[in-house]
Amino acid sequence: MRQRLLEATVELLVERGWSGTSTTLVSKRAGVSRGAQLHHFPTKDALVLAAVEHLSEVRGQELAEAATRLPTGPRRTRAVLEMLAEHFTSQVFTAALELWVAARTDPNLNAAVGPLEQRIGREIHRRTVELLGADEGQPGVRELVQATLDLARGLGLANTISDDAARRGRILDQWARVLDDRLTPQTPPQEATR
Amino acid sequence: MRQRLLEATVELLVERGWSGTSTTLVSKRAGVSRGAQLHHFPTKDALVLAAVEHLSEVRGQELAEAATRLPTGPRRTRAVLEMLAEHFTSQVFTAALELWVAARTDPNLNAAVGPLEQRIGREIHRRTVELLGADEGQPGVRELVQATLDLARGLGLANTISDDAARRGRILDQWARVLDDRLTPQTPPQEATR
Repeated sequence: MRQRLLEATVELLVERGWSGTSTTLVSKRAGVSRGAQLHHFPTKDALVLAAVEHLSEVRGQELAEAATRLPTGPRRTRAVLEMLAEHFTSQVFTAALELWVAARTDPNLNAAVGPLEQRIGREIHRRTVELLGADEGQPGVRELVQATLDLARGLGLANTISDDAARRGRILDQWARVLDDRLTPQTPPQEATR
Repeated sequence: MRQRLLEATVELLVERGWSGTSTTLVSKRAGVSRGAQLHHFPTKDALVLAAVEHLSEVRGQELAEAATRLPTGPRRTRAVLEMLAEHFTSQVFTAALELWVAARTDPNLNAAVGPLEQRIGREIHRRTVELLGADEGQPGVRELVQATLDLARGLGLANTISDDAARRGRILDQWARVLDDRLTPQTPPQEATR
């Protein structure tokens, strides 16, 4: 029942945005009584925070699973970027965007979103470092991984206004080349297989 | 009077977000009668679109003026990035973000925001190419300029949740190196003064 409520919340955030999402609509969509819903989540803020966290965990598992199918060799970096781009144009990004923007002008919500966002951010950063085989001990590498995630976030935001897949693909082609150059500077080209 | 209304609209979008901004509040903040306001802007959508466009024009003029004070030589690229980062963490970005997110779930608003966003996007792209002295005839250069703007947009979004200036500064240091490497590939280092 908890899961149904969380999934209905994300659907409504994506379809109607923060202001169009009410606890009444969520309980109706989930087919859960108001009483049961209030028992699990007493406020809209609690419901939305839990929904974004839940979806992030689900997406994290999906990413981990997809990661096992990534190619090795010269096509790997581009494939990792594709995976990140899919993440930042997915429903979880859209739902999180609605939450972030609402939190910007709501101090109580902001106090809860900050730590959640940090936790999610650290997790995706760790995962990206691992997938790219990046060595953060090298100067500048940490910042390039961060830039990659901020770029993906910016591309995700652009995509909310109009479908942007072709432009995004060309940008990521170039970015993959930059990362391949910069993340494996000591490796001769023929061995740069990660 | 028109300008007072537009500036009050931006202030309210930044302070209270889309849903906290009403035409009544705007006319009160601007000290303009409801009748006069409705004469200029019959709907909230019209008012907010005009306000974001107005602010973009003002910011464009400010950027053009600031551009004349940019250093030449090896520090130029980093200075251009700083200017872009200031733009994407300014009130105009915040007001535009509120508008974009509202437009995502409002088809009428989206139809108007799309063209405005394209116009603003083209203008800032053109300006960035010029400031970086980038040659878009070279393969990959156009995509790197686009990536720069998407990165700046992603950094702007991150900054709405918590002040992010130190992290942003380190990322832009690295990004400037990437651009200096890639945008002037034919120029030997000692001549790479743009």
